[in-house]
Amino acid sequence: MTQKPISGLEPPYYTAVFTSLRPDAPEGYAETAAELRERVGSVPGFLGYESARTPGGLGITVAYFRDLEALDAWRLDATHMAAKEHGRAHWYEAYSCHIGKVERSYGFERE
Amino acid sequence: MTQKPISGLEPPYYTAVFTSLRPDAPEGYAETAAELRERVGSVPGFLGYESARTPGGLGITVAYFRDLEALDAWRLDATHMAAKEHGRAHWYEAYSCHIGKVERSYGFERE
Repeated sequence: MTQKPISGLEPPYYTAVFTSLRPDAPEGYAETAAELRERVGSVPGFLGYESARTPGGLGITVAYFRDLEALDAWRLDATHMAAKEHGRAHWYEAYSCHIGKVERSYGFERE
Repeated sequence: MTQKPISGLEPPYYTAVFTSLRPDAPEGYAETAAELRERVGSVPGFLGYESARTPGGLGITVAYFRDLEALDAWRLDATHMAAKEHGRAHWYEAYSCHIGKVERSYGFERE
């Protein structure tokens, strides 16, 4: 994978940090995740997301939004809400979500 | 690993989201990371951190701080600054850092 860190976004913007514990490949997870990835891309004000997961350990997904309206539009999306409910019932051992307003950001890229 | 997602922090607090690309196990990285983990724990107002890394892919570390003063104390820590400089020279292909003020958070834990 050669995905580069998202950079160059102009503050202010919002991050939703989602940290979770779940089994490695629960039934139906990959399909739902793919559907949600496609769906969030059509939310006005969605700026991107990135995800990392230590095998057997913690997963962290960060989604970037222009403003709280965009973030809330995604939070209240019916397909997304149904997936979260299914996830609580079947996939996740635990998760946390932290919604923050980004005031500063910077990046580095090797030349 | 059975690390649980950090939860229950009372807003407002700050997150520093650090996303990076680097080789799997660059020389000296593990030792420096261990030193920094121990060192950040003594910063007043440091609330915790969590980290995930997809093998061969993106790493995401999120550090939680009570306020910007705590975050800046860590940002300007001499050992931390030297490690960042070394990382830019030797370890990282690219990274981004997003500093945000958390206004809402919530969590879930299976009973």
